[in-house]
Amino acid sequence: MATSTSASPAVSFDTHPDRYQHWKLAFDGPVATLSMDVKEDAGLSPDYKLKLNSYDLGVDIELADAIQRLRFEHPEVRAVIVTSLKERIFCAGANIFMLRGSSHAWKVNFCKFTNETRLGMEDASENSGIKFVAALNGICAGGGYELALACDEIVLVDDSNSAVSLPETPLLAVLPGTGGLTRLVDKRMVRRDLADVFSTLVEGVKGKRAVEWRLVDAVYPATRFKAAVREHAQKLAGKSDRPANEKGIVLNALNPKVTDDAVEYSTVSLQIDRSRRVATVTVRAPEGQLPNTPQAIHAAGDQFWPLRAFRELDDAILRLRQQEPEIGVIVFKTTGDPAKVLEAYRILREHRNHWLAREIINFMKRTLKRVDLTARSLFAIIEPGNAFAGSLFELALAADRQYMLDDPDQRNTVQLSEMNAGPLPMSNGLTRLKVRFLAEPSKVDDALVHGKPFGPQEAMDAGLVSFAPDELDWDDEVRLAIEGRAAFSPDALTGMEANLRFAGPETMETKIFGRLSAWQNWIFQRPNAVGPKGALTTYGSNERAEFDYGRT
Amino acid sequence: MATSTSASPAVSFDTHPDRYQHWKLAFDGPVATLSMDVKEDAGLSPDYKLKLNSYDLGVDIELADAIQRLRFEHPEVRAVIVTSLKERIFCAGANIFMLRGSSHAWKVNFCKFTNETRLGMEDASENSGIKFVAALNGICAGGGYELALACDEIVLVDDSNSAVSLPETPLLAVLPGTGGLTRLVDKRMVRRDLADVFSTLVEGVKGKRAVEWRLVDAVYPATRFKAAVREHAQKLAGKSDRPANEKGIVLNALNPKVTDDAVEYSTVSLQIDRSRRVATVTVRAPEGQLPNTPQAIHAAGDQFWPLRAFRELDDAILRLRQQEPEIGVIVFKTTGDPAKVLEAYRILREHRNHWLAREIINFMKRTLKRVDLTARSLFAIIEPGNAFAGSLFELALAADRQYMLDDPDQRNTVQLSEMNAGPLPMSNGLTRLKVRFLAEPSKVDDALVHGKPFGPQEAMDAGLVSFAPDELDWDDEVRLAIEGRAAFSPDALTGMEANLRFAGPETMETKIFGRLSAWQNWIFQRPNAVGPKGALTTYGSNERAEFDYGRT
Repeated sequence: MATSTSASPAVSFDTHPDRYQHWKLAFDGPVATLSMDVKEDAGLSPDYKLKLNSYDLGVDIELADAIQRLRFEHPEVRAVIVTSLKERIFCAGANIFMLRGSSHAWKVNFCKFTNETRLGMEDASENSGIKFVAALNGICAGGGYELALACDEIVLVDDSNSAVSLPETPLLAVLPGTGGLTRLVDKRMVRRDLADVFSTLVEGVKGKRAVEWRLVDAVYPATRFKAAVREHAQKLAGKSDRPANEKGIVLNALNPKVTDDAVEYSTVSLQIDRSRRVATVTVRAPEGQLPNTPQAIHAAGDQFWPLRAFRELDDAILRLRQQEPEIGVIVFKTTGDPAKVLEAYRILREHRNHWLAREIINFMKRTLKRVDLTARSLFAIIEPGNAFAGSLFELALAADRQYMLDDPDQRNTVQLSEMNAGPLPMSNGLTRLKVRFLAEPSKVDDALVHGKPFGPQEAMDAGLVSFAPDELDWDDEVRLAIEGRAAFSPDALTGMEANLRFAGPETMETKIFGRLSAWQNWIFQRPNAVGPKGALTTYGSNERAEFDYGRT
Repeated sequence: MATSTSASPAVSFDTHPDRYQHWKLAFDGPVATLSMDVKEDAGLSPDYKLKLNSYDLGVDIELADAIQRLRFEHPEVRAVIVTSLKERIFCAGANIFMLRGSSHAWKVNFCKFTNETRLGMEDASENSGIKFVAALNGICAGGGYELALACDEIVLVDDSNSAVSLPETPLLAVLPGTGGLTRLVDKRMVRRDLADVFSTLVEGVKGKRAVEWRLVDAVYPATRFKAAVREHAQKLAGKSDRPANEKGIVLNALNPKVTDDAVEYSTVSLQIDRSRRVATVTVRAPEGQLPNTPQAIHAAGDQFWPLRAFRELDDAILRLRQQEPEIGVIVFKTTGDPAKVLEAYRILREHRNHWLAREIINFMKRTLKRVDLTARSLFAIIEPGNAFAGSLFELALAADRQYMLDDPDQRNTVQLSEMNAGPLPMSNGLTRLKVRFLAEPSKVDDALVHGKPFGPQEAMDAGLVSFAPDELDWDDEVRLAIEGRAAFSPDALTGMEANLRFAGPETMETKIFGRLSAWQNWIFQRPNAVGPKGALTTYGSNERAEFDYGRT
C-alpha cells in the first residue's frame, strides 16, 4: 500500500528569534511579551495562506523555541504576555486549509507537537516560575483559545467584536485537538453543560458572560486593556521564584551531520535502517572533567553534557516522528562510562535549586515524556560497554521492553540513582519505576537502595529488564523480537502501547493524550470530517457538508 | 449518505435462562456455576458460526441476563464459577467473522455492551457480594481472557494445551476491545514490559509463567483442577456479605408495546421522531401506595416502581443505541408527582442495607452510567408537571444540558434528595453534582441542604439547569437547540461529549471507555485492520494481510 506521508513537507525544528517569521519576542525586565504576527505567505507549504493569525507546524515550532529560550536564555523573565500584533484578531487557530491538505499522520503528529508545546508552557509555570497571561486583543477561536487555555490567566478585551470560541465541532466536524475540551472542564472547571453549549457556539462567548462561565478570568474595555494586562502580568510575576540577577546561557544550534541514513550529533547517533523499519538511537556518556559548580555549569552552558545529550535526543525523536513515519521500532543503546553519567546527574541533583540545574532537569523530564508519547515501539538493548545508569536508565525504563545480554565473559551492568526516584516523572505524575512496579511497590525501594550495579541476573530478579538471553541466544532473540515487532500492524501497536505505557493514575496531561487525542484521531478519519462531503473538506467552498447521521 | 447499519440484525435484550442457547446456569448452595457452551449455529446472524466458544452480541446478552438474575433472583449465591463445557477450550473470544461482517457502528456498540457487562461483574463483586472465579479449563484467547480478567480470580488448568492470550494485535491488527489492556496493567498490575510481550504472543502464556507474570492467580493439573476451583470459589464466597436465608424475586419480561415510532412500557415511554432525529424518553412517577418495608418491597418484586422504572429506562436506552443509530438527540422528560418519587427513594435509602434495596440502588446506578456512556446528545426538558426529583433528577444531571421553563403562571420545580449525594456515582467515582461543580464544591452542599423545591430562577442561581427561558421564548429556544444539535456531525459530537461528560478523576472504568475504547474505535476504521488487505479482512483466508507501515 502507499505510504501515508505524501505531501508532507520536510521540517526542521531548529530556529532562532532572529529568524522567527511569526512571533516577536520583547523584554521589559521580568515581563516578556510574545506577540503572534503570523506571516500569511510563510507557511510550511505554499498550498495555504496563514490568514488571521492561523497557524501550522512552522508557527508552533517557533513558539516552542521561544519558550525554550525564555527558560534558558532569560532567567530574569517571570511572566510572559502572549498576545497578537494583528488588529481585532488574537488567533484563528490551526489553519483549516493546512489540515484539509494534510495526511492523517501529519494531522496526528501536528496535534501531538502542539499539545507538547502547550503542556510545556504549563510545566514552565508550575516548575520553572514562568507565568503566562493570554492577552486576547481580538477574536480568539479554536486553537487560538486552546493556546490561551494553556496560560495561567486569560484576559479578554471587552468590545463588540472579541470573543473566545471553540467552533471545531459545529463548523468543521472535528474536535478542538490541542487539549481544549479537557482544559475547559478539568483545568478551568467550566460547568459541563456550559462547556457543552460553548463548544457548539460558532460565534463563541464574549464579555461578562465569558467571565461568568469561567472561560476567561477578566474582561476590560479597549481603553484599559493594555494597562490591565500589564497589571495581571506583574501580579503573576510576583508569584515567581526565578532568580533576580542571573544571566542566561545561549542555546546554540545543534548542527548534526545529516546523511541519508544517519544523523550524527555530538553525543547522540541516530541510525536508520529503512528496509528493516528500525532506527537505533545511541547516547554516549560524557568524557573528561565535568563542571561541578553552578558557575562552571553556567560557563559550560549548552555544552554541559546532560543538556547537550538531551537536546540531541529530543531532536532525534522529533526527526524520527516527523520524517521517518515507516520506522516502527526505535532501539535505544548507550555507550561509555556509566560512572560519568552518574557523576553528571549527581552534580545536577546537588545544585537542583539553582535555576539552570532546575531547567536542565525539567528539560530532561520533558524529553523523556516525549519518548513515552512517541508512537513507535521502543526497545532498550543493554550490552557490555553500555551506560544505562541513572537518568539514562530512564530511557530503558521508557522502553516497551529491555533486553540485557548475559554473557559470563563480559561485564554488563545497569545502575540506578536518585534520578530514578522522583525528578523525572511520567505524564501521569509517577516515576517510571513506580509504574513498572504498581503490583509490588516495595520493589521500587529495593531497586533504589541496591546502591551498586546490577548484573544481568540481578537485573532480572529485580524486575528491571524483560529478558537476559545468554551469548548463544542473544543475536537471534533480539533480531527476531525486532523483526517480529516491525511486522505487526503499526496502528494496533500504537493503540496497544498507548494503553500499556500509562498504568496508574490519570492527569490532565494523560487525559489529553489518551482520551482526547484518541477521539480526535478517530474523528480525523471519519468521512463526516474528511470524506468528499465532510465538513473539513467542504469548509470555505460553496458546498455544504453532508453527514451520515449514524451515531457511533 | 447511506446509513452505517446495513446488515445489523434486530436484537432483543430480553431473555431468560429457560431460553439460553449458550450458557448453563447451575446452583449448589452459595456457589453457582455459569458454563459457556456456545451453540455454533445460533449466532445472531447466519453469516458466521460461533465455533470454539466464540461469541457475538447474543451470547453476551445471555451473560448479562444471567448476572442480573444472580443478583435479583438468587440472593443466596456468593460466588460464581465461570467456566466452559467444551473440551480443551474455555473461550476463543469475540467471533472474528462476526466482527469482519459488521459495520463500524455495530462493532463499537458491541464492544460497549460487552464492556458494560464485564464492569457489571466487577460491580457485583465490589458492591453486591457476588465473587467470580474464572475456571479456565482450556484455551482462553482474546475476549475469553478479557472475560476472565473481569473475574476476581483466574485459575488455569496446567496441561500442555491451555494458555491465556491476547492475540488481537499480532493476529488481527486490532486491540483487545473489552478492557483487556487496561485490566492487564491497571487491575492485575502486570509489569508493563511483560504485558507488552504477552499482548504480542499469539500462542499466549501458560503454566507457571502465567502465574509469575500475574496473568492468572493459580494453575492446577487437570486431575486437581475441579476441586481446586471449588476451593477458590468457597474461599471467595466466605468474603461475601450476601444474606443467608433470603429468597429472590422474579424478573419478569418487560413486554412493552412496540409500534413503529414508539415503545410503551408501564412507567416509561419512548417516542421516536426519525425525521428530526430526536427521541423522547418520558419517565412517569409512581402512583398510589408504595411498599415501605423490606417484606412489602420483596412482595412487590419487579413491580416496585424504582426497579420497574429503571429496568424500562435501561431497555429503552439499549434499544435506542442498537436499533436507532440515526437518532442524534435524546430528550429526557418526567411526569407525575415528584413527592412520590422522593418517597420511593426515601424508602430505598431507609432499607439500603437490605439486600434487595441494595440491588435496586446498584441497578439504578448502572443504568445511569449506561446513560452517561450513550453516544447521543442528551437534553433534559423540565416543564410544569415534571417529576425531576431525587434520582430522577440524576437523569437531568446526566444530560448534556437542562432546559427549564420559567412561566410565572405555572409552577415548575426540581428537587434534590440524598440520592443525589452519593449512592449513584458516575464511572469516575464522583456524583454528578460533584462533577458539575468541580470549580465550586460548596455549591454541591448548598444545593443538597436547600431541602425544598427549586423554582426556575432558583435552579439557575444554584447552577442546576443551563437555561430557563420564559414562556414566550421557550418553544423556539428548545426547538432550535434540538434542531441545531441534530444537524451537527454525529462523530464530532460523540467525541466532544465523551470528553466533556467525565471531568475530574479517572478510574479503570473511565480508562476503558475513554482511552481504550477510543483507540479501539480508531483502529476499527484503519485500513490495516478493515481495508481490503487488512488483517481482520484476510483472517482465515488464504491471503496474507498487507500493511501500510506508516506509524501514526
